[in-house]
Amino acid sequence: MTSTQSAADTGLFSPVRAGTPAEAATTDAACLQAMLDTEAALARVQARLGAVPESAARVIGETARAENFDLYDLAVQARGAANPVVPLVRRLTALVAAEDAEAAHSVHQGSTSQDILDTGLMLVAARTLDLVLADLDRTADALARLAARHRDTPMAARTLGQHAVPTTFGLKAAGWLQGVLDARDRLRRVRGEGLPVQLGGAAGTMAGYLEYALLHVPHAADDGGRRYIRELPAALAAELGLTEPLVPWHTVRTPVADLGAALALLTGALGGIAADVQLLSRTESGELAEPAAEGRGTSSAMPHKRNPALSALIRSAAYQVPSLVGTLMQASVHDDERPAGAWHAEWPPLRDCLRLAGGAAHTAAELTEGLTVHQDRMRADLDLTGGLVVSERLAAQLSVRLGRAEAKTLLARVSAEAATTGRHLADVLAEAPALAGRRSAEDLRKLCDPAHYTGAAGHLVDRVLARHRGLDRDLPTG
Amino acid sequence: MTSTQSAADTGLFSPVRAGTPAEAATTDAACLQAMLDTEAALARVQARLGAVPESAARVIGETARAENFDLYDLAVQARGAANPVVPLVRRLTALVAAEDAEAAHSVHQGSTSQDILDTGLMLVAARTLDLVLADLDRTADALARLAARHRDTPMAARTLGQHAVPTTFGLKAAGWLQGVLDARDRLRRVRGEGLPVQLGGAAGTMAGYLEYALLHVPHAADDGGRRYIRELPAALAAELGLTEPLVPWHTVRTPVADLGAALALLTGALGGIAADVQLLSRTESGELAEPAAEGRGTSSAMPHKRNPALSALIRSAAYQVPSLVGTLMQASVHDDERPAGAWHAEWPPLRDCLRLAGGAAHTAAELTEGLTVHQDRMRADLDLTGGLVVSERLAAQLSVRLGRAEAKTLLARVSAEAATTGRHLADVLAEAPALAGRRSAEDLRKLCDPAHYTGAAGHLVDRVLARHRGLDRDLPTG
Amino acid sequence: MTSTQSAADTGLFSPVRAGTPAEAATTDAACLQAMLDTEAALARVQARLGAVPESAARVIGETARAENFDLYDLAVQARGAANPVVPLVRRLTALVAAEDAEAAHSVHQGSTSQDILDTGLMLVAARTLDLVLADLDRTADALARLAARHRDTPMAARTLGQHAVPTTFGLKAAGWLQGVLDARDRLRRVRGEGLPVQLGGAAGTMAGYLEYALLHVPHAADDGGRRYIRELPAALAAELGLTEPLVPWHTVRTPVADLGAALALLTGALGGIAADVQLLSRTESGELAEPAAEGRGTSSAMPHKRNPALSALIRSAAYQVPSLVGTLMQASVHDDERPAGAWHAEWPPLRDCLRLAGGAAHTAAELTEGLTVHQDRMRADLDLTGGLVVSERLAAQLSVRLGRAEAKTLLARVSAEAATTGRHLADVLAEAPALAGRRSAEDLRKLCDPAHYTGAAGHLVDRVLARHRGLDRDLPTG
Amino acid sequence: MTSTQSAADTGLFSPVRAGTPAEAATTDAACLQAMLDTEAALARVQARLGAVPESAARVIGETARAENFDLYDLAVQARGAANPVVPLVRRLTALVAAEDAEAAHSVHQGSTSQDILDTGLMLVAARTLDLVLADLDRTADALARLAARHRDTPMAARTLGQHAVPTTFGLKAAGWLQGVLDARDRLRRVRGEGLPVQLGGAAGTMAGYLEYALLHVPHAADDGGRRYIRELPAALAAELGLTEPLVPWHTVRTPVADLGAALALLTGALGGIAADVQLLSRTESGELAEPAAEGRGTSSAMPHKRNPALSALIRSAAYQVPSLVGTLMQASVHDDERPAGAWHAEWPPLRDCLRLAGGAAHTAAELTEGLTVHQDRMRADLDLTGGLVVSERLAAQLSVRLGRAEAKTLLARVSAEAATTGRHLADVLAEAPALAGRRSAEDLRKLCDPAHYTGAAGHLVDRVLARHRGLDRDLPTG
Repeated sequence: MTSTQSAADTGLFSPVRAGTPAEAATTDAACLQAMLDTEAALARVQARLGAVPESAARVIGETARAENFDLYDLAVQARGAANPVVPLVRRLTALVAAEDAEAAHSVHQGSTSQDILDTGLMLVAARTLDLVLADLDRTADALARLAARHRDTPMAARTLGQHAVPTTFGLKAAGWLQGVLDARDRLRRVRGEGLPVQLGGAAGTMAGYLEYALLHVPHAADDGGRRYIRELPAALAAELGLTEPLVPWHTVRTPVADLGAALALLTGALGGIAADVQLLSRTESGELAEPAAEGRGTSSAMPHKRNPALSALIRSAAYQVPSLVGTLMQASVHDDERPAGAWHAEWPPLRDCLRLAGGAAHTAAELTEGLTVHQDRMRADLDLTGGLVVSERLAAQLSVRLGRAEAKTLLARVSAEAATTGRHLADVLAEAPALAGRRSAEDLRKLCDPAHYTGAAGHLVDRVLARHRGLDRDLPTG
Repeated sequence: MTSTQSAADTGLFSPVRAGTPAEAATTDAACLQAMLDTEAALARVQARLGAVPESAARVIGETARAENFDLYDLAVQARGAANPVVPLVRRLTALVAAEDAEAAHSVHQGSTSQDILDTGLMLVAARTLDLVLADLDRTADALARLAARHRDTPMAARTLGQHAVPTTFGLKAAGWLQGVLDARDRLRRVRGEGLPVQLGGAAGTMAGYLEYALLHVPHAADDGGRRYIRELPAALAAELGLTEPLVPWHTVRTPVADLGAALALLTGALGGIAADVQLLSRTESGELAEPAAEGRGTSSAMPHKRNPALSALIRSAAYQVPSLVGTLMQASVHDDERPAGAWHAEWPPLRDCLRLAGGAAHTAAELTEGLTVHQDRMRADLDLTGGLVVSERLAAQLSVRLGRAEAKTLLARVSAEAATTGRHLADVLAEAPALAGRRSAEDLRKLCDPAHYTGAAGHLVDRVLARHRGLDRDLPTG
Repeated sequence: MTSTQSAADTGLFSPVRAGTPAEAATTDAACLQAMLDTEAALARVQARLGAVPESAARVIGETARAENFDLYDLAVQARGAANPVVPLVRRLTALVAAEDAEAAHSVHQGSTSQDILDTGLMLVAARTLDLVLADLDRTADALARLAARHRDTPMAARTLGQHAVPTTFGLKAAGWLQGVLDARDRLRRVRGEGLPVQLGGAAGTMAGYLEYALLHVPHAADDGGRRYIRELPAALAAELGLTEPLVPWHTVRTPVADLGAALALLTGALGGIAADVQLLSRTESGELAEPAAEGRGTSSAMPHKRNPALSALIRSAAYQVPSLVGTLMQASVHDDERPAGAWHAEWPPLRDCLRLAGGAAHTAAELTEGLTVHQDRMRADLDLTGGLVVSERLAAQLSVRLGRAEAKTLLARVSAEAATTGRHLADVLAEAPALAGRRSAEDLRKLCDPAHYTGAAGHLVDRVLARHRGLDRDLPTG
Repeated sequence: MTSTQSAADTGLFSPVRAGTPAEAATTDAACLQAMLDTEAALARVQARLGAVPESAARVIGETARAENFDLYDLAVQARGAANPVVPLVRRLTALVAAEDAEAAHSVHQGSTSQDILDTGLMLVAARTLDLVLADLDRTADALARLAARHRDTPMAARTLGQHAVPTTFGLKAAGWLQGVLDARDRLRRVRGEGLPVQLGGAAGTMAGYLEYALLHVPHAADDGGRRYIRELPAALAAELGLTEPLVPWHTVRTPVADLGAALALLTGALGGIAADVQLLSRTESGELAEPAAEGRGTSSAMPHKRNPALSALIRSAAYQVPSLVGTLMQASVHDDERPAGAWHAEWPPLRDCLRLAGGAAHTAAELTEGLTVHQDRMRADLDLTGGLVVSERLAAQLSVRLGRAEAKTLLARVSAEAATTGRHLADVLAEAPALAGRRSAEDLRKLCDPAHYTGAAGHLVDRVLARHRGLDRDLPTG
């Protein structure tokens, strides 16, 4: 094992993201390449605007490749200036100089570490979000299929762990879908308009960029560099596929906070799916089962077990991301023109959020696409309480005839009797003197059938499916 | 002191919100009233749609007033069902029954605790956000005035606590403004479209509402209640000035998460202002001073002191809100149709976020409207390093003539000499043989004048001011 | 409703602590009284040491009563200096002066706001911990009874929600007890030696206290006040029943962090109990039930429900406390001799942790003392998998005879057959050719009896019970 | 770059720990080795007790080396069972079988993933803490030297950023030391008695270990395996240098919580040092400077800068660790006999806390050992307010003669005059009619000398130094 490897994390303790697309997009190597891409793109757009020789930009572009750098060495050297860009620029400059001494003068021209690091992280975020969004599309499609197929499959709704009233599995899946669509909307918005390049120079005044432009760009001085200052960030944003910021955001960390918040919303939504799968696949219920796969869910001690491993992975991310976002929010107080710690504290949690959320999304796609639904177990559980699960309905129906108070008293009595004797509620109710001649036993049986008391579940499923199909123009927006 | 009072918090340990509008809008009494308003509005719209007698709705509306309830008693009774709506409904029903026995049947008809509590909290949020947004308008206006007035006031930019390059106080104020505008945008969006009513019934199927409609509303059964189910939430949302949700959001906590995230963004932005004011008003700098006021910033031990008390208050909120939002995000994993703890854990942090952020916004308005700017101290500090603060510029300028390497060596040498001897960098530089005959002392003095090296600061200030004035249609959106 | 009431929180949204002893010990009024007790005790010990007239100390003591103050007014005035002690001292001084003009000079002599507030909070913590520890004693006793009574009651152990191997309910209760004892140990340690008085004066040098002593105390100057400085904090600590600190801890927040960590450990331990109760009382299992009580666990929508309300309350605290402790830890970075925000940010979360944890402890006592255990349901669930729950044992036993590989293959085959056919594992196994003549059916039945495969559960229960009885001198300490 | 490398983190975004001892002790490879060490030690002690052949234990020990495993491959396979131990055991078994088919039966005998993973993490913690404690010893020694050397070096104490009263740099350093000693005490306690082995088997009953012992160990059955069950964990703890637990702690996460809390206390204490260094090394003060070193504190944009890079690194850790500990506390609610997510969520934050805290400790040793103290700048800053910094003293002195009220009025008047005119407070005071003939100008000058108003600072420094030297037996313990 090389020294680089021995210093490395490979995801051994984070299986939720091990081997996933989001992990590959967020390795140290990927982050280094994103910062190098930023240096190269900066040189290219400065060249296009006349502030840097075209030949220099070309050499920089050819040299700015991660494989030319020793990651571990950069990391250790980063201690000197408290950030990795200083040694990166030193090494890049040396490499470029070896090719073309003159070109070395154009490396990182007018720039500052924060411009490169912030833009690099936005680039990493953009590339990762593209992968996450693809996995969310898969997840949403799978959930939509489940919601449609089980639109009218009755199951017990539980509140505080107790059977409450009937619902449908379609509505449960639609609720999961609703959460995923909410998160996807926010991540799309962040991806589309929330990942700006950073281009402020040493302290956010853009003075370095401007100074070089005034020295090198013909006619730049005609308007005091004003046009150049407008064009540079726009060109860099276009070059990198990121957003142009209104002004540098060195100390205004909105992009970081928005990204973090959207990722936490996502892991919350996926965590909710996972929690439900866990509860419904408990040995006692078995209403759901995770997709089976070679080696999936095995136990080192118990040969018979089939653990809901995918759900556990997703939940492990859902536990971690909120606190990491808490760090991002806590560290969003940036004092002076660059704080000594708060900025530096953003990097690991931001990266970890991206890959935990990305790993969770990938895992959720796998989980939802292969989820097994046991309708028979749902029905069996729904019948467990012998009709008590529709007591809300009975309360409504009986109160019309008996008044609310008397209905309530009657229901309490028959519920207790049904629970004690194990008889079905409808049968006990049919014998109640108060209902004599008013309700037939058959009528009461029907009234007590949980499958007939799912309220507007089907209608609500349709609404979420319409949103998923993009037909939500005329639907409420909340 | 009554038993109610002795159980009460009045903000003694939270001066950032004590006596502010946001506090008044988020007291237990205000929250109780919001839940009662929800019950009253629900009865009203059910009456309008025919599911409840008009007379009942009227009595309910007249009765649903916080002063009819003992808050402490409700709170203690809330332990029985783990939420305060159960005793609230019990008491409300009794009060209504005392007026009109029949009307009591219509209290909370078809509803569930979560519908009332969630809607009530959204109502509290809406009322509080209106106040917060007003304070943000004041703050934004004050910052815009500061940015405009000091567009070209030079000061030292600090990174990691050290003088870096010159900037302007206008740009600093514009950065503060940018953060406030970002937060205001998000809070306006949440206020406008992110605070939905909750109307799902016992477990999100709306079955209870539907059942009563089918029993009471003429023709409701014609379409299986479909139209009623569409109209009820829309009507309630209109009645309360909230948003109509696509479907019930019992387990999809997007509104809570979005609200929390926007509030954390706000306290981060305001915390940044406060941190800067603290640093710049340190005894050694004195570039800024908080507005003076009777009793403000006094110390119990030191008669001469004038503490930056408003900043301290704002920062106390900025420390607390991220963790509280972390709880909201952590608790957003809602299992089953209602979790046993995660939902209940939302209430205190959500309310605390609202009033801490609201208190911070109110305090920020006071701080920014009265902030004293000492331009002379800014200039004095800017001159502290004897020209070193423009070394970036000199590096650019000299490298054109001497090449980057030689320029760097020269600068290091003269910087060290200037630092050791206390002479001005321009003077030392003027004697450098390498520049002999190329740069006059006067030229160098001018080059070293920090006030002439503020880059695009003025232009950037203009951009943020244009955004503030709503002229940002054509500006970048990032 | 008075203005005080309308600004008040009564616990409406925090039923876990509403009406509990910990709540009463942490109200604003209780905190105010603790700070006043500190002022009074400080005057008393200064009097005893000769720095303050005895008569003055007496008047201060008589005046320093919470009912002489308007809490809301203090809270609002606290905005001026960013802390409530400044207006408290102003008001106290005025009240004392009204009694005895001379005595007013001795109020808060040599002191600073932080001394009073920090000591006051430690006093609140001490008083609350005494109540919490009493509730933990009740909880521990109840759990010990459960563990002893059910030492050998078999039930299914679940890992990742799936039946794993058998365990006993006694061992589960012993695990709960172990967590409670761990937390109690740490809270006792904090209570006994971790709640120091604060006595540093304006900036931690004790200069103010010393200056007055040198002016007033005979012979104090003989040793430069050294003896006085030693005696003052020791006397104050003794007076208030708190610990004497080595030095002032204005900026070294160990007491706050230790207290917070111990409270989070407690809510984690109690949260684990609550989570288990919720899972085991799900409608499908019903192995446990919360204690029944008038009005407990009722639902506003579903008349038949009996919700695990106590567990939900406890978990609501377990969700909130970790984040609040996160704030305390985040705010433990105290710069200068008093930071402008980090100190102020401690107060609300510290108080909230105390009462959430205290409320959870009180609720846990109620829950565990009344917990209903359904052994029949435990056994029924344990038998659900038809013997698969002992597959670990079979793997061990069979591998001795067949070798590990063959044993594993055989077990996989018979497990699948048992699962498919619904036959008991022992019966399928008895027909396996590999076991022909080696194991009788009866022998296999016994081997497959879950009640005979509980490992060292009984022994482990005994160990925890010995710890609970204080007989753990010779037991491992980890 | 190999696929392993491209999936790797090397600390590029976490320079606080890059290349530090704590990082090396917490890599994935180190964690893998710790888990393999656990498997090997388990086989060894089982062999010693007779449950496993000696030869098998030897082969397992020789095979259990990290270099025989592909980390990335393990990480990806860990997705199948949601933990890395399952593929680790699979691979280890295959490797052992290749050497000795019989020995393979003894790999992981009676064990479960959690036993290996939890024990492995405790081992990693133990090894890392040894390194951290060594760095804390260095830090404490350096701080003790600073405190002793500057016991009487006067400087301004600041509260809320404003000069308050004089203090000494020695007392500041003693305060830092106090925080470090507090953290060291807690970490030593955790290291000494808080890192237990985990040995519960499949679900905490130790049934698997017991079953094999009953099959293989002569006479084990004589006492039902009771003695074996006592000896196994004790032997494993001795073998690994860890603590023997009272009972398995699968669901009682006290060791994790205690470790996390102690690490957060540490980063809080070190963060406080770093924050002070940053404030006192601001360009305007320059009272402190970080140790200079080649490449340290350089800026990519500003050639003249010397950034407090070490402080920034330390603070980056202090921002992150509290939230990570928040995750550990949040995830300490372990339901069933093993939760599906909460346990899995512990691994990354626990490891990150260890290396962030370890990196911060290493950085703090470097910072404190090389810290430059500019006494002249301290004195110059102390004199900035022209005597106002001793106004507390004057208030005490004058009130003796004039009464408190008149003294206060006088002080307010002369302070204002001194501030306006720039004259020294003593001079203005000397002209006050109220003092005519009572206080000589010289006397007043002396009274106003900040160096003479440092209270008990020296005495307090001595106390902390005595604690550091281990002479604190007779000192207060708080």
